[in-house]
Order: sequence, then C-alpha cells, then structure tokens
Amino acid sequence: MKKILIAPSMERSLTRLYIGHDLLTSDCLKQVCDELKKIPVIISDSTVKDLYGDQLSLHLQAALIELPQGHRTKSRESVEHVFKELFSMGIGRDVVLIALGGGSTTDLTGFAASIYMRGVPHIFIPTTLMGMVDAAIGGKTAIDTAYGKNLIGTVYHPQAIFADLQTLATLSRAEWLNGIAEILKMGLIADAAICQLAQKNFQDPELIYRAIQAKVRIVEQDPNDQSLRRILNFGHTIGHGLEAVAHFEIAHGLAVAIGSLVEAHLSVSLGYLSKEDFAEIQALYTHFPLRLPLGYSRKELLCAMSYDKKKKLGHMRFALIDQIGRAMSFDGAYCCNVSADELESSLEWMENRYG
Amino acid sequence: MKKILIAPSMERSLTRLYIGHDLLTSDCLKQVCDELKKIPVIISDSTVKDLYGDQLSLHLQAALIELPQGHRTKSRESVEHVFKELFSMGIGRDVVLIALGGGSTTDLTGFAASIYMRGVPHIFIPTTLMGMVDAAIGGKTAIDTAYGKNLIGTVYHPQAIFADLQTLATLSRAEWLNGIAEILKMGLIADAAICQLAQKNFQDPELIYRAIQAKVRIVEQDPNDQSLRRILNFGHTIGHGLEAVAHFEIAHGLAVAIGSLVEAHLSVSLGYLSKEDFAEIQALYTHFPLRLPLGYSRKELLCAMSYDKKKKLGHMRFALIDQIGRAMSFDGAYCCNVSADELESSLEWMENRYG
Repeated sequence: MKKILIAPSMERSLTRLYIGHDLLTSDCLKQVCDELKKIPVIISDSTVKDLYGDQLSLHLQAALIELPQGHRTKSRESVEHVFKELFSMGIGRDVVLIALGGGSTTDLTGFAASIYMRGVPHIFIPTTLMGMVDAAIGGKTAIDTAYGKNLIGTVYHPQAIFADLQTLATLSRAEWLNGIAEILKMGLIADAAICQLAQKNFQDPELIYRAIQAKVRIVEQDPNDQSLRRILNFGHTIGHGLEAVAHFEIAHGLAVAIGSLVEAHLSVSLGYLSKEDFAEIQALYTHFPLRLPLGYSRKELLCAMSYDKKKKLGHMRFALIDQIGRAMSFDGAYCCNVSADELESSLEWMENRYG
Repeated sequence: MKKILIAPSMERSLTRLYIGHDLLTSDCLKQVCDELKKIPVIISDSTVKDLYGDQLSLHLQAALIELPQGHRTKSRESVEHVFKELFSMGIGRDVVLIALGGGSTTDLTGFAASIYMRGVPHIFIPTTLMGMVDAAIGGKTAIDTAYGKNLIGTVYHPQAIFADLQTLATLSRAEWLNGIAEILKMGLIADAAICQLAQKNFQDPELIYRAIQAKVRIVEQDPNDQSLRRILNFGHTIGHGLEAVAHFEIAHGLAVAIGSLVEAHLSVSLGYLSKEDFAEIQALYTHFPLRLPLGYSRKELLCAMSYDKKKKLGHMRFALIDQIGRAMSFDGAYCCNVSADELESSLEWMENRYG
C-alpha cells in the first residue's frame, strides 16, 4: 500500500490518499472512518452496490444509499434523492458520506457533502481507473445540467481517498480506456514518462501511480484553480463540447481522447508543437475506437463550447502543449484565447479523421 | 459612510463592508463592481425590484434576474431559476452576482454564487434591517427544504456588502421588528450596551453599527463555525423549530424573539442566568406581538428541532447566556446538550405565556 498526503489548502486538513490492493475490506479504511466519529453512509449505484457495496456496508456497519436509476448519476435528482434519504434517516451534520463508485459517484457525493448542512466530511473510494487518476483528486465536485457538464459544483476536499486496485478487475475494456485517456492527458501535459510507459504496456500499474502523483502536484500548486490547474483542461474544451453534442451519449474518456488529439493538433497549427511530437501522440491513441458522435455538427459543437466554463469574454480558452509532457505557461495563465477561425483547421482535421 | 474590513479566513480576500446612506447610487458601489471586471447581474424579488432594482440596474448597467413569485425565495426552484436565466444569457464564470433584498435574497444569491461554475464572486446589498445585521454577514448561505430551514447551503463570502440605511425607510413595522430581534439577540450574547440602547430607543442607528460590529468580531474569531460562532444560534434552536411547526408562516424575527426568551428561560432554569436578568430581558420584548403559531404542538416542535443542524447524537444543543451580553463558553464548545426533560419547564413557560 502506498500513502500520499495531499495538502490542498492551508486551511483544510490534509487529504490522505491510499493506493493498494484490498483496501475496501482493510482495517485502515475502518480506522479512518472510526476516527471521524461520525455516522458513515455509503453512496453507490446499483451496479457497484452489487459488486462491492454490500460487503463495504457490512465491513463499516454503514447504511447505503443507492442512487436512483433512470437518470444520470450527476444530476439534481440524484442530489435530491441523497438528501431525502439522509433526512428520512434523521441524519444531520454528524455524517460522513462515503462515495463508492466511478467519477460520477464521487463528483456527485462530493457535491452533496459540500452543501448538506453547509458541508459534512466525506471519503472517496473510486472503483474505476478514471475515478482514481482524475475525478477523485483535487476536490472539484459537480453535477451536470441540460446546458453542459459540471456547470454546477463546488471545490471541496475529501478527508481520505482509497484507490483499491483490486476493484479494477471488474472494469470493462471501455471503462479501462476512459481511464487511460485521462492518464495519457496527464502524460501529455506533465509527465512524458507516462507516454513512454503507455507505449509499451497500457496495463502497467506504474501508470496509475504516476498519473495520481502528477495530478496531486498540480492541485497542490494551484488549489483554487487560478493558474497552473488550467492545464488539466487539456483535451476537455473540445471533449466537453463533444459530450454536449452527443447528449452525453459518448464515453467521457473517448471524448477526452479526441479532445486531446484535436488540442494537440491545435498546438501544432498555432506553431507551438512539432509535427514529430504530434505523430507520436497520434500513435498513443491507436487502441481507442475514436469516432465523432452521431448527429455531430460543427455549429452545435461551437455553440456547446460557448457554455463551457472556460469561455472568457466570447473567446474559447485552451490549454496547449509545446512538447510531450509539457503544458505551456502563457505567462502564468496556463491557457490562451483561441478564436473560431484559429480553431477551424483542427476541427477540419478531426472531422476528416473521425467523422 | 463607515467602512469595515472583514477577514473571514486566511485564504480569501477581505470582504469590504460599507454602512451609510444612499450607497445604492454611489460611485463607491459602481467602482467596487467595475474593479471586479465581471458582468454584473442583479438578483431581486419583484417588490424590491420596483423599489430599488430598476434604479440599481441603470446605475450599474446590469441585467436583473427577478426571482419567481409563487414559491419561497430560499428554494431549490429559485436557484434553478437563477441558473436558467444565467445560462440563457450565455453567462459563464465571468459574472458577479449582486443580491438586492432581504436576508432570503442574500442567502439564496450567496448559495447560487457558491455553486455556479464552482463559485463566482458576489456582492450583497441588504435592504432589510435583518439582512444588514445578520444574514449578509458571515458567509453562511442556504436554502430551505421541506425538512427544515437552511439545511442545504455553503460557507462562501461576498466580495463586498453595502448596507444602505436609506433603504430601511420603506421597511414595514413587522420587518423592522424582525431586525430588532436579531439585534437584541446580539446584545444578549455579546454586547450588553445594545440592550441598554434598545431600552431607550429602538430606532437608534447605533444599534445597527454595534450589532454589525459584534457579528463581524464573532465571525472573524471562528470563520469555520467550529466554536464561538455557535453563540449566534442563541434563540434559533427554538426559533427554527417554531418556523418549521408554522410551515414558515411565522416571521423569522418573531420566532427568534420567542426563541431568545425561551432560551434565556432555559439559561435560568439550568441555573446559569439570574431571575433579575431574565426580567430585564422580558422587558426588552414588550413591543413584540409574540404568539405561538396556529396549530402549535409540543410534539411537533421537538420533532422539528430534531432535524435542526445543531442536533448532536440525539440531544438538542443550545447556546446559553449567564448574564446579559455574555454567552457561555462551556469550555470552548459554546453550546451544551439539553435533554427534552431539561427543556420541559421552559416549553411550559412559553406555552402558558404565548399559547
């Protein structure tokens, strides 16, 4: 088991992050829960409940709130459901919410924890690769709206994160690729070694450790998302736009994979990245079944991106790279404004290749 | 004009608080808005819009979102309405929300600002006495639910607060008493001079300054609501319970006035406060038309209080006073657990007197 302490801000207590096997049923998890002296309540969807929720519920002697089926996990309805269940149990401030599941479940639980009774503590147990390397780290919580992804949310850090590698055994190939897309993005912006390792073996657990460590470093340097952290948006301006166009019927990882390629292409067309690096980057994504969503139109994509949080005064903002493993600083802004015209050739490239 | 700088936390910028006349149309307000370099959007209800909203909208060249009539201001529906309007205007992170109205409008706007795009800046312009001396100060935001008041919310501080005393000219007597109830509470827990001044003249503006200053002192000493700030709940455990029993059809100030009296009585019956002080406290409230809500039942009150955020492991928690102007520390906890049995004689007193 590896343990990393995350210091997200001066004022908050450290987040303890544990990475290893069989953490779900470990004494360590039980001890961290007990130390909080709160009533533990697990939040999970029906699939993860059947796989891991019931045993966790027994291990921690905790109630479990099952997220309602029939609408998306990161919705207002899910938040309302969680609150209604907590109220019905008569549970107030003295609760610790434990998210068990993928990034949607941890994002939702973090958001619920941040606004329930003006904030209660919470713990993340991500059970997907994407959840472990991305969603669970950094304190960003969110729900989606009809106008776009993650438009409503907070920044609120968990007490602890348990990344139990054992839970990855039940992951589908599609979900595995979702996680790899975020790991590759992390490699492109912050750690070239990740890209080298991934070229050799996508299954190497070292990829997970390195991606987590890279994200922790970035988050600690910019806890309030004012500068450096913007590089994490690499691949996501396009990615979120594609998800909106697809009415979220595209896997986040695939959207981010296309987004990373398009934003790497943009980095080339604006004269920052070499064509050689771009060729290497393209080679990284050969395993991905990349395809634009059905019903894609460029107009819709541009419109959807205009609701993106990264929009500033009519321009779209992009994080860009000038070599593999290095996002550009742009004098400390870590993003730059790009007009629709400047974006055009990259969108054309995308449409020709994945349309 | 008086200016107070509030330092609510190490990590956040100071909140600038201005108190004076005609601030609504002042250069100072315009300047503070302009400095933020964001798109200003005013949030107000229809009554306040007609009184002050339109002129503020002109002064700041700002759009105004009118809160929907037909449900309570501090509701999930109001939050949704604000977001829908912002999305429709295509406004993202680059917004500063300006709450213009009473405590409900500032609480709601603060909450909306704290979760829109993971947090956007906001400014408060409270137009009620209660809003100025209580709701606008301290960063607590909230909406109500069917299970109780303020159960969903965040702690999120505004960039600036403008308490324009001119706006109090349009306040009804009932709304004036709402504010006085919070001012008297502040006197009881933290500043005996407030009670002395109030005995002489309820209209003395010095009451407002002193109450604001007392609240700022308390909030700065305990920004995260871990200890001292609990004394602000004096009168509110009972008060919130009464509001729930009355389905919120009782003015907050009247509920808090009864609550303050009952909790002062409780302070006597537990042996902390003298009967002489209690008699003086009773004399402070002779102007208030105090009456228990229709359909009051003790069982319902106790049940409603059990959903109160201050509940801890089955006990009700109360802030108490041992003399006028001094809340008790209880070894730094600033509240104590009280059983239903211990509360009984105070509830009986309340029922006999105001039933």
